[in-house]
Amino acid sequence: MKRYRKAAYHPAALVESPSVGKGTRVWAFAHIMKGATIGADGNVGDHSFIEGGARIGSRVTIKNGVSVWDGVTISDGVFIGPNAVFTNDLRPVSRSLAHDFKPTRVLDGAAVGANAVVVCGHTIGRFALVGAGTVVSRDVPDFALCYGNPGRVRGFVCVCREDLRFRGARARCRCGRTYRKTSGRSPRVTEA
Amino acid sequence: MKRYRKAAYHPAALVESPSVGKGTRVWAFAHIMKGATIGADGNVGDHSFIEGGARIGSRVTIKNGVSVWDGVTISDGVFIGPNAVFTNDLRPVSRSLAHDFKPTRVLDGAAVGANAVVVCGHTIGRFALVGAGTVVSRDVPDFALCYGNPGRVRGFVCVCREDLRFRGARARCRCGRTYRKTSGRSPRVTEA
Amino acid sequence: MKRYRKAAYHPAALVESPSVGKGTRVWAFAHIMKGATIGADGNVGDHSFIEGGARIGSRVTIKNGVSVWDGVTISDGVFIGPNAVFTNDLRPVSRSLAHDFKPTRVLDGAAVGANAVVVCGHTIGRFALVGAGTVVSRDVPDFALCYGNPGRVRGFVCVCREDLRFRGARARCRCGRTYRKTSGRSPRVTEA
Repeated sequence: MKRYRKAAYHPAALVESPSVGKGTRVWAFAHIMKGATIGADGNVGDHSFIEGGARIGSRVTIKNGVSVWDGVTISDGVFIGPNAVFTNDLRPVSRSLAHDFKPTRVLDGAAVGANAVVVCGHTIGRFALVGAGTVVSRDVPDFALCYGNPGRVRGFVCVCREDLRFRGARARCRCGRTYRKTSGRSPRVTEA
Repeated sequence: MKRYRKAAYHPAALVESPSVGKGTRVWAFAHIMKGATIGADGNVGDHSFIEGGARIGSRVTIKNGVSVWDGVTISDGVFIGPNAVFTNDLRPVSRSLAHDFKPTRVLDGAAVGANAVVVCGHTIGRFALVGAGTVVSRDVPDFALCYGNPGRVRGFVCVCREDLRFRGARARCRCGRTYRKTSGRSPRVTEA
Repeated sequence: MKRYRKAAYHPAALVESPSVGKGTRVWAFAHIMKGATIGADGNVGDHSFIEGGARIGSRVTIKNGVSVWDGVTISDGVFIGPNAVFTNDLRPVSRSLAHDFKPTRVLDGAAVGANAVVVCGHTIGRFALVGAGTVVSRDVPDFALCYGNPGRVRGFVCVCREDLRFRGARARCRCGRTYRKTSGRSPRVTEA
């Protein structure tokens, strides 16, 4: 075990990967395995674990007690709340080599709330907001507000995190951003 | 990092605050940050994290893997179950300084079950019992039994933890304590 | 604190029990207390905690951030997902000696998903599959697929982890195994 040490790493952190970007802070009892990549200006909280195959972008906040496994890709500006957990095997069998691995992606600017669990094989869209304690068992669209067990889309949020109030197909946030929503049972929202 | 060491602290605990009361035990890989205050005769389990702004009373049990953040106040005699998690930002944004911080309070004698998550901005009342895996997204009244996702009040419990069975507005527990309940959709219970 | 060291233990693991079987790997910041027994060829992930009275069989995978308490018995070949949590007291009171302890059993080949919580006093049956984020608040039968909050039986799975499709009382999996199901509201499945 080669261990990297920087001023931005707590002395009780275990950082075995050289691929952690400038300015990223790693806190006590966090463990980043060899092979993991993490971008700049991020944060990895106490008791978090980043497996060797995880890919994490820049300005990402990983709070305490989070596990990020091989097969999980987290894009820039994402927030992962405390004790949120990812998975990478739909039907795990102890000590088996016949895994049912599925990749998981969390896209730019999304937030995953405290104690949420993301069942593997799904994508959490750009700037989506997944509430505390949510069980994510399907894809979450861009800008969606999703919560519950199982997680359901309950509305949409702006980049600035305010709720979007649509009049027909269009919404204008107080911050000035405008959005369009498709019709149908599973609407999609895009910046207009 | 100044690290305090006492006989009651496991050698692998990190205690950076001098304000931990007499008789409080701190277990392996727990981390108590500078500024945190914890009363006497408590317990902080393995892999728990207490942020500098947290305020914790006496005779409080914090089991393993719990995070207590700035803005969270825990009163005397409270039990926090393993992997229960608090929050302090309703709509978190990675690396943002524009937080939507809300305080959380857990009042005397309450218990928060394993893996429960307390959305910030809420108060858990005196001697309330929050079940395992509950998502607390509103205030929990005194003596309430609350569980589910989202957490709902399902009944009321005595200080001794027995279910209270009301006849009209009054209940008498087998332990001898008596209670009154207000009428209405969101009843309140008080010791009579 | 006597600490055992083996090649299969990460240097940052704390193993205080000599009763860990051959080939079992213990990862960083895991803590196995004196008195705990764990069989051979298992795995105990980062930040996991095994209390002194826990009994764990062989070929068991315990992922990261799991707590296994006194009163919990885990049989051979079980998989426990990350941040899954057990309990051993139905109505906990801080610092009380009057516990309401109930034992928990997880039988051979079962899997407990990420972030699930097992309320004490229940048995998870052989080869049962408990989904991510489930709150287990009753017994889970053999071969059952159980998820939700509260956890409900949603179907049955084969030893090979495929869904079982019953025609009347019998099912034959693609892997060749055959099963029988009893009738009634709470059916039981056995290998035929």
